[in-house]
Amino acid sequence: MKPNFSVRLRVFNLNCWDIPYLSKHRADRLKRLGDFLNLESFDLALLEEVWSEQDFQYLRQKLSLTYPDAHYFRSGIIGSGLCVFSRHQIQEITQHVYTLNGYPYMFYHGDWFCGKAVGLLVLQLGGVVLNTYVTHLHAEYSRQKDIYLTHRVTQAWELAQFIHHTSKNADVVLLCGDLNMHPKDLGCRLLREWTGLRDAYVETQDFKGSEDGCTMVPRNCYVSQQDLGPFPSGIRIDYVLYKAVSGFHIYCKTLKTTTGCDPHNGTPFSDHEALMATLHVKHGPPQEDPCPAHGPRERSALISALREAWTELGLGMAQARRRAAFAGYVTVCGLSLLVLLCVLAAGEEAREAAILLWTPSAGLVLGAGTVYLFHMHEAKGLCRAQAELQHVLRREKETQVLGSEQQEGDRAEEQ
Amino acid sequence: MKPNFSVRLRVFNLNCWDIPYLSKHRADRLKRLGDFLNLESFDLALLEEVWSEQDFQYLRQKLSLTYPDAHYFRSGIIGSGLCVFSRHQIQEITQHVYTLNGYPYMFYHGDWFCGKAVGLLVLQLGGVVLNTYVTHLHAEYSRQKDIYLTHRVTQAWELAQFIHHTSKNADVVLLCGDLNMHPKDLGCRLLREWTGLRDAYVETQDFKGSEDGCTMVPRNCYVSQQDLGPFPSGIRIDYVLYKAVSGFHIYCKTLKTTTGCDPHNGTPFSDHEALMATLHVKHGPPQEDPCPAHGPRERSALISALREAWTELGLGMAQARRRAAFAGYVTVCGLSLLVLLCVLAAGEEAREAAILLWTPSAGLVLGAGTVYLFHMHEAKGLCRAQAELQHVLRREKETQVLGSEQQEGDRAEEQ
Repeated sequence: MKPNFSVRLRVFNLNCWDIPYLSKHRADRLKRLGDFLNLESFDLALLEEVWSEQDFQYLRQKLSLTYPDAHYFRSGIIGSGLCVFSRHQIQEITQHVYTLNGYPYMFYHGDWFCGKAVGLLVLQLGGVVLNTYVTHLHAEYSRQKDIYLTHRVTQAWELAQFIHHTSKNADVVLLCGDLNMHPKDLGCRLLREWTGLRDAYVETQDFKGSEDGCTMVPRNCYVSQQDLGPFPSGIRIDYVLYKAVSGFHIYCKTLKTTTGCDPHNGTPFSDHEALMATLHVKHGPPQEDPCPAHGPRERSALISALREAWTELGLGMAQARRRAAFAGYVTVCGLSLLVLLCVLAAGEEAREAAILLWTPSAGLVLGAGTVYLFHMHEAKGLCRAQAELQHVLRREKETQVLGSEQQEGDRAEEQ
Repeated sequence: MKPNFSVRLRVFNLNCWDIPYLSKHRADRLKRLGDFLNLESFDLALLEEVWSEQDFQYLRQKLSLTYPDAHYFRSGIIGSGLCVFSRHQIQEITQHVYTLNGYPYMFYHGDWFCGKAVGLLVLQLGGVVLNTYVTHLHAEYSRQKDIYLTHRVTQAWELAQFIHHTSKNADVVLLCGDLNMHPKDLGCRLLREWTGLRDAYVETQDFKGSEDGCTMVPRNCYVSQQDLGPFPSGIRIDYVLYKAVSGFHIYCKTLKTTTGCDPHNGTPFSDHEALMATLHVKHGPPQEDPCPAHGPRERSALISALREAWTELGLGMAQARRRAAFAGYVTVCGLSLLVLLCVLAAGEEAREAAILLWTPSAGLVLGAGTVYLFHMHEAKGLCRAQAELQHVLRREKETQVLGSEQQEGDRAEEQ
């Protein structure tokens, strides 16, 4: 890239609410979305909740002239729902599927079956290596009693770690998606502090769209008051986040959201609002950066988020172990019952009742055994994330102590 | 690192065969292994099949003075079995759990319950950024009828992708572990060709140990002829692989294996042989490298491996879909039977038989439904890997075509 050269990047992000048989006006919304993306010709269009691969193929065909490259991220049983359409050639692709993603027995929530993930695509734009991430984290069904909080925090940590470890050669990092977290939520802070990513809504000087940048608003005809919970005026859970490494400078020139309706004819594309960001990447020395990612204030905010997450995951782990213990206890009881039934069936007196009860008891053992294994897996996943958090926490504290000692040394020398 | 400076790295790798209740002489072997590691004081000791966290804690305590840093990689239900002991401070840690890892109903093989994974630790040694990976892939229970081949190839691809995407800032990459693959097996070639990693056994001038570098040998008293299958003289399935990026040069000065017995008193540490490598890292211009990772011959070998893997995964995917379809068919039949039994139970004639059969039928529906979901997940995982292979294949072919066009252009100019 030449010294005074600047790369402009127009990005579109939308949670499409494309659930076969369940979402309203699916075909019509998808058609209009395709028309809009063709008309606007973004550099990248990143979509979530495209649960039907047929719909992805429909869009791929419709957008093939404007966006010659595309990818659908497959995972879990149903899929991750993530896909991307790019005006530029995608150099590399990979993905990470989150270890924890809800409970299979909460089948009416459905997240477990989806295989929520983060997709990565590497692009080269005018000599700039751009790592783009698209993700969708576990939904929050109740703000007051959020039974998925630890899973979402673990997902946020895995997302942060995935970005941290896969973007070391990137000049610019971009993350778009539906995080299902409010800006000040623990997972969101953890993600921002560990990766150094900045929020386009906070950073831009030119924002147009829904009040407070909300991406689920009451004006949208597909959004019910129940969806918004204790935030009747709307919530901000979809994001465009970015950063540039040393030697590059990135800023968000404009950020727009839809406001509960299609920009052209009034009916919304989805129950979420779309985000449209125009980013500029320039060559710039590191000192141009007004907010260094590793200053003492940032380090202290990171340590605080790490500590909170560590505690949260500890609580989740204790609960997972309690549940596993209970399921294990039921399994053992069921096994004892099975043995007892076998003894009774061998005798004369209660043979019929014993035979009748044998299959339900075997079902109980299998069911409880499966629940036991599931919660053991959950506890292991939380323990893994907690150990990683602990490791980073220790390293950050060491750096903080070293930093203070150096500052004290400098002061002493000055005196 | 200063221009003439060289970093020496002594690495130990062993599949410990540490399975509670099943492995012979576990406590004794672990004690002797700890003593040996303390005595030898390697830079890194990478262990697989440490299935008991208590055993890891025992080793951690025993080795704490010689290896102040250590990590246990938790995953799945039982764990990944991977751990590491380091003489140097571990800067960063993360891991990737393989998407596919056998079948839960093959519980007597047990792999599915383990959560096989690859662990990454980042170290800094004398200014050199060293990414070390430790892994253990799915076992091969039968060479003639290997039902886990597609899963192992998928794991090898995920391993290669994980290394490729997380090592972009590393000066040196080191991979140790039990790959459960012979050197010329598809997964092994795919891994080496895509990452550019080189095999210490092939590269070193100074090898001492078992014949042909085998890591499971008939002389080892814990190895049966059944374990070796059609290779009675031994198999090589554990590896030390490495590479250095441009600007650095790495070579393997010596490689040793144990030969079916403990180096000191005759009883082996495990059913696998330990690998002990001494590596040297130096500053060196890229042209010092005798085998460039991206020459036309290497590209052609990569394309060939990618094509083979693509075909293998396609076969696996077709099988997974057939199994899912069969399980789906059984689920629907079971559901129909349940409806029929409800109708019969409502009547008079066959009420008792209907009630008796209701629970086994419900069990059938649940069981077949679970198998359906499992194989749908398997097909999705294979499809994901196949799409990534396809993408790399397309990009590599484009580069190959560009390369040949350039060569032809150069020749035409010369003439």
